[in-house]
Amino acid sequence: MSSTSESERRLTTDPSKPHDRLAARFETKLDAVGTLIRTRMESRHAPRIPEVTAHLVGAGGKRLRPMLTLAAADICGYRGVDDEKLAATVEFIHTATLLHDDVVDESSQRRGRATANLLWDNKSSILVGDYLFSRSFQLMVETGSLRVLDILANASATIAEGEVLQLTAARDLATTEEIYLQVVRGKTAALFSAATEVGGVIAGAPEDHTRALFDYGDALGIAFQIADDLLDFQGDAAATGKNIGDDFRERKLTLPIIKAVAKADEEERAFWRRTIEKGDQQDGDLDHAMTLMTQHGALDAARDDAVAWATRATDALKVLPAHDVRDMLSDLADYVVARIN
Amino acid sequence: MSSTSESERRLTTDPSKPHDRLAARFETKLDAVGTLIRTRMESRHAPRIPEVTAHLVGAGGKRLRPMLTLAAADICGYRGVDDEKLAATVEFIHTATLLHDDVVDESSQRRGRATANLLWDNKSSILVGDYLFSRSFQLMVETGSLRVLDILANASATIAEGEVLQLTAARDLATTEEIYLQVVRGKTAALFSAATEVGGVIAGAPEDHTRALFDYGDALGIAFQIADDLLDFQGDAAATGKNIGDDFRERKLTLPIIKAVAKADEEERAFWRRTIEKGDQQDGDLDHAMTLMTQHGALDAARDDAVAWATRATDALKVLPAHDVRDMLSDLADYVVARIN
Repeated sequence: MSSTSESERRLTTDPSKPHDRLAARFETKLDAVGTLIRTRMESRHAPRIPEVTAHLVGAGGKRLRPMLTLAAADICGYRGVDDEKLAATVEFIHTATLLHDDVVDESSQRRGRATANLLWDNKSSILVGDYLFSRSFQLMVETGSLRVLDILANASATIAEGEVLQLTAARDLATTEEIYLQVVRGKTAALFSAATEVGGVIAGAPEDHTRALFDYGDALGIAFQIADDLLDFQGDAAATGKNIGDDFRERKLTLPIIKAVAKADEEERAFWRRTIEKGDQQDGDLDHAMTLMTQHGALDAARDDAVAWATRATDALKVLPAHDVRDMLSDLADYVVARIN
Repeated sequence: MSSTSESERRLTTDPSKPHDRLAARFETKLDAVGTLIRTRMESRHAPRIPEVTAHLVGAGGKRLRPMLTLAAADICGYRGVDDEKLAATVEFIHTATLLHDDVVDESSQRRGRATANLLWDNKSSILVGDYLFSRSFQLMVETGSLRVLDILANASATIAEGEVLQLTAARDLATTEEIYLQVVRGKTAALFSAATEVGGVIAGAPEDHTRALFDYGDALGIAFQIADDLLDFQGDAAATGKNIGDDFRERKLTLPIIKAVAKADEEERAFWRRTIEKGDQQDGDLDHAMTLMTQHGALDAARDDAVAWATRATDALKVLPAHDVRDMLSDLADYVVARIN
């Protein structure tokens, strides 16, 4: 599975896109969130901290998660400023996980720029990640809502657990779709769903509305990640900025491969064992992998799954009152899978 | 500065020692804390998590921080069970920082055993550390006290900031005693003071009592770390389990060296630059370093500082009501510096 940030960047090149309409709608609040992020990443004692953070925050992340919080709070009628604090909180958590992910994945590029672990060192990425996480923790405490703290604590645990799970499941052909889903929840959906849910909670929304916001974020995150996995095999390299087959070459067990492995005969299993588990790849292997996934309908089935999750996301929103921002969130879910249709 | 865990181990070989009296006094509660730790480090999805954690938690850490929380709550008359949750919380935070520290320091041994980063890999240490931090966060939310959350959020930020500061200040001769103190607060004292303060807070202690508990933990942590730095130069290798001069060989700018550098002439500065900043060490350099520190009274001055911090710790306790556990904490502060007198 490749990072969601790549996709986020791709989501935002066209002003007619739902993401851009949300950004325009919340421009003032997003500016306030940006100021909060800059202020809170300062460190009087350790200048390395803002250096590293600014490199990443300044690198053009599209602030999808903060926008989800602002949108959820707005739909639920919130009129205060705690939504800005929580939007900064989720962005800090996201940035902290990116810093640690890049060390764990030994990545050298993120959003088209050298990663912090490459520019400084792994130590700085680990410790600045810890610092940002602790800063996010301070920000959420300032909202004074135990419910918000509970939601974000649980999301943090799901994220960390999913990362460890990915570490052990990444190249293991025994990985099931159930495990894949847990990994995706940790990797993407847990922070999406927490971002939307806390927006409803600080607005004092009724229980069925906060539940709907959680369900929307969860389903959106899963649809998002499955679409990203599919684009790796059939995206337009010029549009996606990724080379076809990167995940395959990096031996990542993404959903289309998991589906193909489940239907593999002995000879096919040997192929997947060699290319994914052992990493012994030769010319023509990517083509053969594509053929196997097509033969078993694995790409179509993964696409159907992504569409089903996007539908779950838009369905969840129907519980909420009519609101133009609600419609933008609905369009966003549609857009995530429109990329693969 | 060497890890406090080494010293903790050394603190507990003799039942007449204050640490052992505290352990005996809180035996039942410490068992409950142990159960809580085992239960909460479980992961249904990612068995790597309890494996790594059990390796570290099972390695004989002496649970000094959990004991400080239990002791503080007891002195303030607390009779519930949230002290056990907070004791487990501080131990999880401590364990998470050890996992990350060992990756950052590229350590291979901790408490006489191979480190997790060596037995598994850096990735597991980073991500399991993140998981334990998120679990600690869930535990503290369960106490329902925003004041407790605020204290632990601030402590987490101080810890992370101190670690980054140490990274950049470690071998820089321009490091002042002020910076050293900030590093030590991050490394040791911030979690000590949070551990004692939250004990008072959940007991509903008056403001001057929680302040006294904070001051005690802060001063104890600083005395503890300075003593550890001194033992590196003049400890009894058999008793401390450390070789004399390990910190010097690892080019760590500890308090005695900072004090000697401050009084160095040009020739002496050249010596420190070569041995600490450049790491070009030869036979006889440790002896020469000892001679310089002795000549400038740096070892004696560091010892005086440690004793002064221990005195601040015992003085802080005088605000609290008479209590046999208060006396144990006072004895603990005296004991920390008795090792270097």
